[in-house]
Amino acid sequence: MSARIGDHPGIGPGTRFLVLAEGLLGDVHGKLAHGVLRFRPESAVAVVDSTWDGRGAEQFVPDVPSVPVVGSVQDGLAFGPTALLLGATPAGGAIPPAWRPSILAAIDGGVDIVAGMHLFLSDDRELSAAAARRGVRLIDLRRPPDELRLATGRVLDLPDTRVALTVGDDAAVGKMTAALCLARALRDAGETSAFVATGQTGIAIAGWGVAIDRVIGDFMPGVAEALVLRAAEQARYVIVEGQGSIAHPAFSAVTLALLHGSAPTDLVLCHNPSRTRMIEYERKPVPPLSELVATYEDLTRYVRPACVRCVAVNTGGLDEREAARVLERVESEAGVPSDDLVRFGAARLGATLLETRAAPVS
Amino acid sequence: MSARIGDHPGIGPGTRFLVLAEGLLGDVHGKLAHGVLRFRPESAVAVVDSTWDGRGAEQFVPDVPSVPVVGSVQDGLAFGPTALLLGATPAGGAIPPAWRPSILAAIDGGVDIVAGMHLFLSDDRELSAAAARRGVRLIDLRRPPDELRLATGRVLDLPDTRVALTVGDDAAVGKMTAALCLARALRDAGETSAFVATGQTGIAIAGWGVAIDRVIGDFMPGVAEALVLRAAEQARYVIVEGQGSIAHPAFSAVTLALLHGSAPTDLVLCHNPSRTRMIEYERKPVPPLSELVATYEDLTRYVRPACVRCVAVNTGGLDEREAARVLERVESEAGVPSDDLVRFGAARLGATLLETRAAPVS
Repeated sequence: MSARIGDHPGIGPGTRFLVLAEGLLGDVHGKLAHGVLRFRPESAVAVVDSTWDGRGAEQFVPDVPSVPVVGSVQDGLAFGPTALLLGATPAGGAIPPAWRPSILAAIDGGVDIVAGMHLFLSDDRELSAAAARRGVRLIDLRRPPDELRLATGRVLDLPDTRVALTVGDDAAVGKMTAALCLARALRDAGETSAFVATGQTGIAIAGWGVAIDRVIGDFMPGVAEALVLRAAEQARYVIVEGQGSIAHPAFSAVTLALLHGSAPTDLVLCHNPSRTRMIEYERKPVPPLSELVATYEDLTRYVRPACVRCVAVNTGGLDEREAARVLERVESEAGVPSDDLVRFGAARLGATLLETRAAPVS
Repeated sequence: MSARIGDHPGIGPGTRFLVLAEGLLGDVHGKLAHGVLRFRPESAVAVVDSTWDGRGAEQFVPDVPSVPVVGSVQDGLAFGPTALLLGATPAGGAIPPAWRPSILAAIDGGVDIVAGMHLFLSDDRELSAAAARRGVRLIDLRRPPDELRLATGRVLDLPDTRVALTVGDDAAVGKMTAALCLARALRDAGETSAFVATGQTGIAIAGWGVAIDRVIGDFMPGVAEALVLRAAEQARYVIVEGQGSIAHPAFSAVTLALLHGSAPTDLVLCHNPSRTRMIEYERKPVPPLSELVATYEDLTRYVRPACVRCVAVNTGGLDEREAARVLERVESEAGVPSDDLVRFGAARLGATLLETRAAPVS
């Protein structure tokens, strides 16, 4: 039972993660591992990937301090972790059989297990029994809160809070990264800001949050609303990690739950120029940015008017000149400033939030 | 475990419902009871409502054959029911304490219990124990399917199937009723049609379906898709019961899951002219019909292009002349034919589906 919405005991500030990333370092499927290494490196004591035993994680994840890579969980336990973090969330939601010995070894070593899968560790009989015997916790980041709560629009009653939601033209285009970078840029600019995690990787980084896609459909907007209300207690700028894309037929419902539940004052559109077909729904092309701006702004006005303020572009893989050309094209298509927050910093797009006012609630 | 998506053993054609509607006959909260009495009267052997003991259900529900009203479950058991249907789904999702003796009496009498609540009968210890002892079933209409399935767009591969989805300007404006009436009108016109139930009342009527709002967010569109595929095996016209409204901040995610998961070829907009503020979200007004038409058509094109073909209006409470005036205003606002399907029949709006072609998939 959570004391407050989004609480996950065992992943807070004191946590020392051993990151299980067997065969995943540098691989696109290791999103959870890479996210924690990149945005919470101070909490990662070591990474398990026997392919790269003896290397450092900074060789695979840009701009992070060195974190040692070891060949096995047993070797990793020497670094004094409090928890083993399973560094991927395989499609289908089940625990890969190859991970089981590593998980059992970690339990044996007396550390908690943290996972972000649809199917829960705690529903696995062998792991539950082993964890109970050893007195360690199985922490499922995607476990939804118990409450059944509908959205009521209470976010609209916060007069001074700015709520920025990252939205995308497709899924997996950098919405979490953009939200984290913007929250940091606003803090650097002297404002109070809070990142609201809505997916398992964001939760592992922030130490709290709810995986919205795992919540019962009826309650997704209410949970989003409650997360914003919690974050707003501490910060004037609440930056919400978006999910999916309004144009992605399989994920759009989760996207809209966040849009209508979090009731944003500002939208940040995220875009990956190398993507031409929708991810995991390749029969559909990624629509033009101008159409997405129109659709997001049309939908958000049903809860309150908000504008797309800027576009966060992932120019990874492009050289400096190509990147500049893409950013220029995006600005002209979307009609708002665009930048690559990882490559060129988030200060400029952060400023687009500081310089504008929220539209009044009708 | 369901054999097929949407199966609920115990509510099929042979079922004889005793409808528990204590204090609910003629009341807006008795939607489940009224729905079954109206659209599946042949399966209702009696209604329990001690307020109206000795009356007939036709006095409370228009256009239905007589179904006796009795004062208690014990009296109702004399009519030979196979199941007690709990005729309401109270907000909050829990079983009203006042119902418990009636439920236990029905279990004692050897009949199944059927409910549509968010909290499941089978999770209630006292009822589970009693049902197990007596060998009867506890049937939770809102229990979601076990599978974790994402939408893939397989509906788009059905070349000849027309999929009509009912959508609304607000929740609870008659989407289920419109879908049932249209499915019947198409059958009357000599076509094959199937009604796809997506809420607990629709499921009790159709004997199959899934309560989409109770499905994990990520899987709602995939479930909608699977229901349409199942219905399309039997019928050329698949009429899907919509949920919520795209303009309702608390329910829009479920609405969009149906829109993008069922991939409609045609939309039927439902409207209640007496509604001015959104239900259960009264801080927001119901938007104009022309805006809703634009938003629905903008969103559906991300999966495939579809038009709002007609508006189903609930003119209950208006006299003949007022009703005619409202229908005229609605036609001018929405730009498509409008009618009250209950009052004036569904043949005319059904014909708007028969006379038009589906847009080609891009």
